[in-house]
Amino acid sequence: MPKTVDRSEQRRQIGEALLRLAGEEGLDQVSVRTVAAASGRSPGAVQKYFRSKEDLLLFASELSGERIEARLRTVDPSLPLRRALRELIGATLPLDEERRAEAAAQLAFAVHAAHHPRLAEVRRHVDREVRDALARRLAADGTTLPTATADALIAVSDGLALRMLYAPGEADALLTALDRAIESLTPPD
Amino acid sequence: MPKTVDRSEQRRQIGEALLRLAGEEGLDQVSVRTVAAASGRSPGAVQKYFRSKEDLLLFASELSGERIEARLRTVDPSLPLRRALRELIGATLPLDEERRAEAAAQLAFAVHAAHHPRLAEVRRHVDREVRDALARRLAADGTTLPTATADALIAVSDGLALRMLYAPGEADALLTALDRAIESLTPPD
Repeated sequence: MPKTVDRSEQRRQIGEALLRLAGEEGLDQVSVRTVAAASGRSPGAVQKYFRSKEDLLLFASELSGERIEARLRTVDPSLPLRRALRELIGATLPLDEERRAEAAAQLAFAVHAAHHPRLAEVRRHVDREVRDALARRLAADGTTLPTATADALIAVSDGLALRMLYAPGEADALLTALDRAIESLTPPD
Repeated sequence: MPKTVDRSEQRRQIGEALLRLAGEEGLDQVSVRTVAAASGRSPGAVQKYFRSKEDLLLFASELSGERIEARLRTVDPSLPLRRALRELIGATLPLDEERRAEAAAQLAFAVHAAHHPRLAEVRRHVDREVRDALARRLAADGTTLPTATADALIAVSDGLALRMLYAPGEADALLTALDRAIESLTPPD
């Protein structure tokens, strides 16, 4: 395998170990040492690919964003608006183990970004892309104030994911709240 | 001062030092050692009042909840519904330094609760109280599906707070999104 491909594959494996650890135990359990152990490497081997914990977090945050984008792309864009929104938002909610780990990592990065400017910049960029794509779709379907509506839907989605993480028993009630928000904010299909 | 009063005052001071630190630097900077330093004490002095970091976090989380409840009580309940909601949610959004520190601590606790059952139980209890109080007010003002609407409004509020923390430049756009959500979810004043 050429050296650059191997390097990028090594970084990906380490980033995935970080996401697993953050999803299962929380971002406060993440350090170069614990990520090294979780990926079957020595701390020195991890430091060959990431100069600092912050570099590692930044890379894992981007990797996590790419995974969620890939999952969003599986939603059929020809679905009627409300059904598309239910599927898009549902794809990011912690409703099974895989999405739970992803949502836990994503939200931990978001809180962490409040104090880490580089991480904040990555998130603002992703938010703008999601908001603009969503606003275009909302406008095409005749929603009033598409940008504000897109921001409101993103907030609902993040807020529901946050609460489902520590209140999984409320999942059904929170999905009803999601329907209520979508039906209030968008024109009927 | 009687010993029990002093004990409770000492605990409060230490809890407030934790909230300051979590708000300013993030929960990942919180340990018995850093909280001791931030409150002008030795680690041993902190451990006299809290047996573990988890006990300390739990206490600070409750303290933070009480502060936010006190702030919510300053909103005039005789205001028309939409205005009351704007003021109630606005009171918890990170729109100045004080609310920023509070929101950062609150959201960090929420993410932390995903992996800490005792913290999760405290949050679920507070959520149920907030949801029920909000649903009663919404029902009294003729909102359809008051419980689902209350859950949707709580989610919007948390999601907007989360994003404002790392995207303070978006505050105006996010307040417009809040208005859009409130106007969609509630009957006109």
